[in-house]
Formats: sequence, structure tokens, C-alpha cells
Amino acid sequence: MKSSAMRDLMAVTARPEVISLAGGLPDTSTFPPETFAAVAQRIAHESCAKALQYGPTEGLAETKDCIAEVMHADGGMRVDPDHLTVTTGGQQVIDLVTKTLIDPGDVIVAEAPTYPGAVPTFSSYEADVVQIDIDADGMRIDLLEERLNGLERDGRRPKFIYTVPSFQNPAGVTMSLERRQRLVELAAEREILVLEDNPYGLLRYEGQPLPPLYALDGGVYVMYLGTFSKILSPGIRLGWVAAPAPVLEKINLGKQATDLCTSTLSQLMVQAYFELARWHDYVESLTEIYRARRDTMLDALAEFFPPEAEWTRPAGGLFIWATLPDFIDTTDLLARALRDNVAFVPGEAAYLDGRGRNAMRLNFSASDEDAIREGVRRIGKVVREQVALYGTLTGRPAAKTPAAPERRPAQPGQAEVVPLPRRKAQ
Amino acid sequence: MKSSAMRDLMAVTARPEVISLAGGLPDTSTFPPETFAAVAQRIAHESCAKALQYGPTEGLAETKDCIAEVMHADGGMRVDPDHLTVTTGGQQVIDLVTKTLIDPGDVIVAEAPTYPGAVPTFSSYEADVVQIDIDADGMRIDLLEERLNGLERDGRRPKFIYTVPSFQNPAGVTMSLERRQRLVELAAEREILVLEDNPYGLLRYEGQPLPPLYALDGGVYVMYLGTFSKILSPGIRLGWVAAPAPVLEKINLGKQATDLCTSTLSQLMVQAYFELARWHDYVESLTEIYRARRDTMLDALAEFFPPEAEWTRPAGGLFIWATLPDFIDTTDLLARALRDNVAFVPGEAAYLDGRGRNAMRLNFSASDEDAIREGVRRIGKVVREQVALYGTLTGRPAAKTPAAPERRPAQPGQAEVVPLPRRKAQ
Repeated sequence: MKSSAMRDLMAVTARPEVISLAGGLPDTSTFPPETFAAVAQRIAHESCAKALQYGPTEGLAETKDCIAEVMHADGGMRVDPDHLTVTTGGQQVIDLVTKTLIDPGDVIVAEAPTYPGAVPTFSSYEADVVQIDIDADGMRIDLLEERLNGLERDGRRPKFIYTVPSFQNPAGVTMSLERRQRLVELAAEREILVLEDNPYGLLRYEGQPLPPLYALDGGVYVMYLGTFSKILSPGIRLGWVAAPAPVLEKINLGKQATDLCTSTLSQLMVQAYFELARWHDYVESLTEIYRARRDTMLDALAEFFPPEAEWTRPAGGLFIWATLPDFIDTTDLLARALRDNVAFVPGEAAYLDGRGRNAMRLNFSASDEDAIREGVRRIGKVVREQVALYGTLTGRPAAKTPAAPERRPAQPGQAEVVPLPRRKAQ
Repeated sequence: MKSSAMRDLMAVTARPEVISLAGGLPDTSTFPPETFAAVAQRIAHESCAKALQYGPTEGLAETKDCIAEVMHADGGMRVDPDHLTVTTGGQQVIDLVTKTLIDPGDVIVAEAPTYPGAVPTFSSYEADVVQIDIDADGMRIDLLEERLNGLERDGRRPKFIYTVPSFQNPAGVTMSLERRQRLVELAAEREILVLEDNPYGLLRYEGQPLPPLYALDGGVYVMYLGTFSKILSPGIRLGWVAAPAPVLEKINLGKQATDLCTSTLSQLMVQAYFELARWHDYVESLTEIYRARRDTMLDALAEFFPPEAEWTRPAGGLFIWATLPDFIDTTDLLARALRDNVAFVPGEAAYLDGRGRNAMRLNFSASDEDAIREGVRRIGKVVREQVALYGTLTGRPAAKTPAAPERRPAQPGQAEVVPLPRRKAQ
């Protein structure tokens, strides 16, 4: 899916009559305006001239303290402020890391499917992206090892491995502890950098937290992407990267050439917010709201989607990934769904090789429960029509493609997850 | 000068005991905190959830209206909002235009000297930057034509011409109306895009406004970079680009991959500010303050710099460019000056070819008049020491290098300007 098509999709979904399950938007209407007002007053009275001025490229020390607090709250990560750069949202981290490390033709390893927003970024630097299939426990590290061996035989080594281990975008799955440990070992053994993208780590709706890769590795090979977008606000465009000093120095030079520094206003807003309010309470309130919306979406999928469809059951984050029979092209399906005023992200946006045509990403954080239920109902109707049409045209019932995945019983402290369909490694 | 050295310089100048004439900072302490408070309250009460949410990649319509108002106030420019993208500061425009148009080895034409912040950006995309000398009337369009002819003979055509026509960074000079007209003609004749970088256009301290290139060309070949950094605040990181639709489409795709969208909070701050306050009054107050600071700096240069030095007399903007005898290396001089707690930008930061070693950029917007006078006194002392040392070592007085430029009488409605030294075209 072209990113221009993605932009068109975003424009269409801005129409108020459209129920958009497409974006990755948090529900910012949950944030108390009186807290915003208090935070802004604090800045007006104490640091107005500073908030309006340029700041250092790497970010303000006081903002880095807030970041260290968030990282500590998420799996007990410890970070040296000198290893941090404050960025213009998490997206800029993906851009700067890729810009810093990639020459045309260099290899990046990513998940299959991967974050749709990373696809145009990787492409813009002409990276050769190798996508490794995932299942219910996240990236298949056995397939990763096979692939690394194959690349090594060709004299190639990835410049970095990009992963969203927790509540993955787009699939919603979470990498198991065993795989996390093995991935970090692999990175050290083979001296390959990892970019851990963790926007949703604190948005867990069930089960026990798992340590981030950054905590397991201690920041030696693992670079960490964090953001305030999902725990506070994406509109302030505030993210960060933690990286080893030599990489961070290059990232800072790249950032200086790109936008000089991150909004000082946004950085001081976060600082004042952390002083005036209990940020963790707000994250907990989001968790309650999003958990209910996830459950509503899961129930609606069971009610309205045909038996030929499968979907993941995320333990946190913002997304469910649904897989439909092979003969359905979700990009075509989207055009049909938009006529019914409902939107989703077609699966091929999450691949660089045209796969994913029979999958879709569904967001449950941005819409209320009524809208989620109605949106899934509308999509389900369109999907059922396609399935029926296929039956009429071919005279045979739609086969599930691929074969129905094994269902495993839920483990204590672990979400029950419908595994993603297995695909052969590329 | 390496951009890492530039970053070190910026870090040193953040020390409170240092008088920094190095940065390009506006004086944000002049902005009324009560206005900031009122603007923030408006957002808290009316658009909190929107301010905290993602926005469209190209920017909010209400912010584009403010931009159109600013452009109209500056030389009567008229712009179609569909030709605008709101960016993360003006620097992002330089980055995105370069990213969009340049493949390694492509030619960019820039001024000599050029904006130091553009140098690492152009370098990061491996552009071949051709710098055209300037004089008191801005870029030498005769030299530009010669150079374009030479490039054409080699089968090369610049992808774009980068210029700061008004109160140039770093030299402070302003392109004459005749040259503006000829440049726009040339661009059309040869079908070459121009990127007009105009952060200071409204900060004129004397003389009559000149039309921006964008107004003369109507936005056909001229792309326009604007910013709120110098008329409101750099800390909100809000700039914009106006460009022809096919280029803008690519810029938007690049922006989406880079940072998704520009801060919604910052965009709504500008909108509320334009509604609640008279932004033009604030610009006028800045003009009064900066004019006095410019005059103080010019007086101090005449008093404290040795007769071998020359400098420009800008009619607006933030910078004066001083040229010293050839034997002085201003990068070395800076190390000496920092021991006296004063800083400037060494001239070589404004060139890609090592020239500019005997020049320096001096900023007069960020310091009060006492600090400006004291800062120039300290630099003057160090320069005089170097001149005396040279005389002692060589036994001959320092010759002005190059020969003293002709002084022309001031034209009505035009600032008297000491021309920059003429240099041969590369």
C-alpha cells in the first residue's frame, strides 16, 4: 500500500460520519482540561521565556528526568540521561536511527507484519528490509536465526533489528520472555544493534509485565524508542531515544540538521505535568478505558465476523490484527467499507513485499464502545458479502487460509492469544 | 567547521557567564507571559483534546490561515493554503526540500557565505553545493549566471537555488530589487527551483520593504520557507513551506515518514495567539529593540575593532558579518575568545569549502545593549592582540585582505551597507 494511499485514508477518516478503526490515536478527550490549564499556568509564571526559546539539540535535562521516571516505571529500566535524546515524537527516532545507520541496500530486519509507519521511512533510505514472521509469542527468533545465517552466507549483516516487542503494532502480540532473552543474546553474539519500539508498554490490560529488551541488555546493543504519545499526548510530539554514546552522537548531529531541537514548550509541559499531577494515575485510567474497548471489539468480532476470519487477542496496546480468507483483498475491501463509513488499515501497509493482502489492522483506543461495535458490524457485513460472493462464483465454500492455527490454553499471567497464521519465512 | 564543533560551541555558550554573540536566538523574554497564559487558557477551555491529538501531516487549516496572514503582511504575498505545509520549524523545510529533491552528487546553489545550519543538512544528503559570492546587494546574479552556464556545459543543472534574500544569515545583506527580479527571471528561463528562506523579512529596521521572490514569481519556481521562530517563538518549533503542488506532495510524504505531523499544540497556540493578541504589534516591539541593539553593535565595532576589520551594516535581521585580516583564523580566535567568556560563529561554518576562515558572524538580537558592547569589546581586544602579534612576528603591518571595498553612498530608502569583500567565483 502506497503511503499516499495511506494519507488519503487518513483524510477520509477525518470525516465525522466515518467510524475510523484505522488510526493509532489515543483518546485525548480523556485528559482533564483543568490539568492542561494548570500546567500551562505554571509555565506562564515560571518559565515562559525559556519555553519559547530554542533548547539544546539533545533535549532539556528536566525532561530527561521525566523520561527516566517513565522508563523505570516500565519494567524497571535504568537509563543514563547522557544516553538520551529527546525527539519530535517516536517517529523521528525511527527516521534518525535509519538515517544514521543505513546506506542504500543495507539490511534492516523487521517483523512481518511491521509498524506501517516505519515502512515509508525504511523505504526512503532505500533499506533492504527483511521481515521475519511472528506468532502469538512475537517474532519467531528461530526464523530470525535462520535468516541471519543465510544473510551471513551472503556476506551481509543487518544494520539493526527493528521490533515492537510489547502489544505489537499492528498485530497486538507480545514477545515472550524466552524470545526476548534469546534475541538479546543473539544481538550480543552477533554484534547487531536492536531498535526496541515500545510506545504501549505501560498500556497492559491483563497478565504480568515483561522486561523490555533494553532492561535485559542494559543498553549495550539495544536502542530504545519511547514516546509520550500514548501515555499523555501525541499532539505535543515528544518522544525519545536511548542509545549507546557513539550512535547517539550521530543521531544528535542528524537531529540538528533535521529540526535543530525538540519543542521546548512541549518539553516543559511534560516537566510541569509530572510535577503537578500523578501521570501514572492517568495511564491507569487509560488502561481501564482501553481494556473495555478491547473487550468490546473482541466480542463484536466474534459476533459479526464470519467463521472464516481469525484475529489476535492483545493483552495491551491499541490494535487487533484480523486475518481473512485468502481471496479477500483488504485494500479493495476498504473501498467498499468506506462507502459504509467505516475504515481500517489494510494489511499490506505492514509489509514491504505485497503480503498481508488478506489482513487488516483494527484500532480500539480511539472510538467509544458503541462506535467500535457498530464499526465492526459494518466491516463484518462487508466481509460476509465477499465470502458469500466467492461461494456463489466458485461454487465452493471459502477455506480458511492457512489452516486453522492451534489454540493453546491461556497460561497463568499470560493473555490467551489466537496465534497468527504461520507463514513460511521469506 | 564541523557541526559537532558547532554543537560544542552551543553547549559552551549556554554557560551563564558567557556573552554569546554566536546563536541566532530571538529575545523571548520580550514576550508577555500574560499573553502566553491567555493563549493557553483559550486552548484549555476550547480545544484541549484537539491540541493533544495527532493532526494532519500538512498542518491544520486554522494555522495555515495565520500563515497566509503573515505572508500577506510581508510584501503582500498571496498563497493558496493547499500549497502550504506546516513544519517542525524552518529547519525542517531545508531538510525536507533537500531530502525530496537531492540525490547524492546533485547540485545545490547557495550563497557564499550561506546559513551555517544548512551546511550539515546539504552535506547529509551528499549534495554538491556551489556557493556564489555575495556583496552588499546580495547574491551576485552575474556570477550565478556564469556558473549556471559552466554547469550547463558540463551537462549539470542545479536541483535548486537556496537563498536568504533579506537580512541574510550570516552576512546581514539584502538582495536588491533588480537582482530579485533577475533571479526570478533566470529561474523561469532555466526552469530551476528556488528555495527562498525568509525568517527575518518582517524585522526591518530602516528602508523600504522589498518584495519577496515568492511574490515576484507567484510561487511557480520559488518555494518559500517561513517560520514563527523570529516573530513569535522558536521554542514552539513552527515553520512552513509553500511550494508547487507536485513538490509539496513529495514533501508531505517525506514529512510523514519523518515525524508524522507538526505539533498540534503549537499550531493551536499560534491560532489562539492570532485571535487574542495583535501579533504585528509584538513584531514592531521586537523591531524597536533589535534596531537599538544593532546600532549598539555597530558603534561598538567602530570603537573596539581594529582598522583592519570590516563589517556589514544590516538593515534588518539578526546578524552582522565581520571580515578580519587574512592571517587571522577565527576558529582559533574563538578558542581564545571563549577564555574571555565571549562567543561568535567562525566564518568557515558558512562555507562548504573551508573558506571564511577570517570572518565571523555576530548576533545582536539575543543580548542586551550592555552585553553587546562588552562582548564586542572583548572580541575586539583579542583581534587587536592577534593583529599586533602578526606585526611583531612579520615586522610589517597587517594589510587589509582583500582590498578595502568601495563604499557607495546610501540610496534613498536603502540601508547604507559596507559591501562584503569581493571574492573570485570558485
